[in-house]
Amino acid sequence: MKELEERILKDGIVLEGDVLSVGGFLNQQIDTGLLSRMADEIKREFSDEPVTKVLTVEASGIAIAIAAATVFGVPAVFAKKSRTSNVVGEVYSARVHSFTHGTDYLMSVPKRYLAPEDHVLIVDDFLANGEALQGMISIVGQSGATLAGAAVEIEKGFQGGGDRIRSTGVRVFSLAVLDSMNRGVLTFRPSHS
Amino acid sequence: MKELEERILKDGIVLEGDVLSVGGFLNQQIDTGLLSRMADEIKREFSDEPVTKVLTVEASGIAIAIAAATVFGVPAVFAKKSRTSNVVGEVYSARVHSFTHGTDYLMSVPKRYLAPEDHVLIVDDFLANGEALQGMISIVGQSGATLAGAAVEIEKGFQGGGDRIRSTGVRVFSLAVLDSMNRGVLTFRPSHS
Repeated sequence: MKELEERILKDGIVLEGDVLSVGGFLNQQIDTGLLSRMADEIKREFSDEPVTKVLTVEASGIAIAIAAATVFGVPAVFAKKSRTSNVVGEVYSARVHSFTHGTDYLMSVPKRYLAPEDHVLIVDDFLANGEALQGMISIVGQSGATLAGAAVEIEKGFQGGGDRIRSTGVRVFSLAVLDSMNRGVLTFRPSHS
Repeated sequence: MKELEERILKDGIVLEGDVLSVGGFLNQQIDTGLLSRMADEIKREFSDEPVTKVLTVEASGIAIAIAAATVFGVPAVFAKKSRTSNVVGEVYSARVHSFTHGTDYLMSVPKRYLAPEDHVLIVDDFLANGEALQGMISIVGQSGATLAGAAVEIEKGFQGGGDRIRSTGVRVFSLAVLDSMNRGVLTFRPSHS
């Protein structure tokens, strides 16, 4: 998505360790106009899918999940993260390794929020190693629902998570794919559409 | 807002200690249609205010803040919570006591996201003792911005936080005000509009 790529080049800040900070327009402060246009792009990409639920993981995925679910006219569901494995009750869960924090966490969704009849679109802000996305794919699988695919705002293509998940047959749509961030110079993968 | 009151009566669950669970439509799963209509109500109430920013505190306020900011056509800003007081750098901050968790936390917003020219509407999901709202009001004050007021989804009127803040001259608009939850029987305060 040209607008997003241009905005990243203009307002994104590259920090130590290939960290891309987009806090001024996609994270701690959100440009809601851009957010709505990104949601429209996601709807366009998955317009052939009878989506019934949008799934994300708290907290940074909530904004784009709300915007996308609103355009699809369906509920948004948030997977919760917990440090411990004592998530009790009727939940689907997956253990996820966070490369950012160097620790594992448990991701969970109450069973009553996902049913076998559901057609689930996973939405998130960033896709790097793909661990969080794999966790959500596992949860959709456990529920017996159909996975429509995954849509993310920014994919760090050079970290390989997106392509690994695509190679398993999952449809992954990224609004912007960074192919490199060498010494702060950002290079985007050419879009197919 | 009649629709919200009816939905709370239909799908809300009253737990031990006057905890109202609305996880199925306002929290872990969000009815995005209801969310949009609540945002429209907030816009109607504050249509006389030249709002330039919507402020909330992570994480449960994000959904309604995104929806409201989208209707106003302005950015949404999220105050972050941290356990420790070592929030460094250029931030506005406020210490907040959480009655839910029995602990204090530090709420902070980078200074670059709020300016004296801003006209800020605070939005949140719940208002009970009003501690989180007081923290955000303090942060708006520190920035020199104008406070348009505060809009919340559900106010627990019997806990008094909303009325205490109103008595200081702040305009507080709640889509539903619970006046009592005696033994699980919910009574709403009659709406003025």
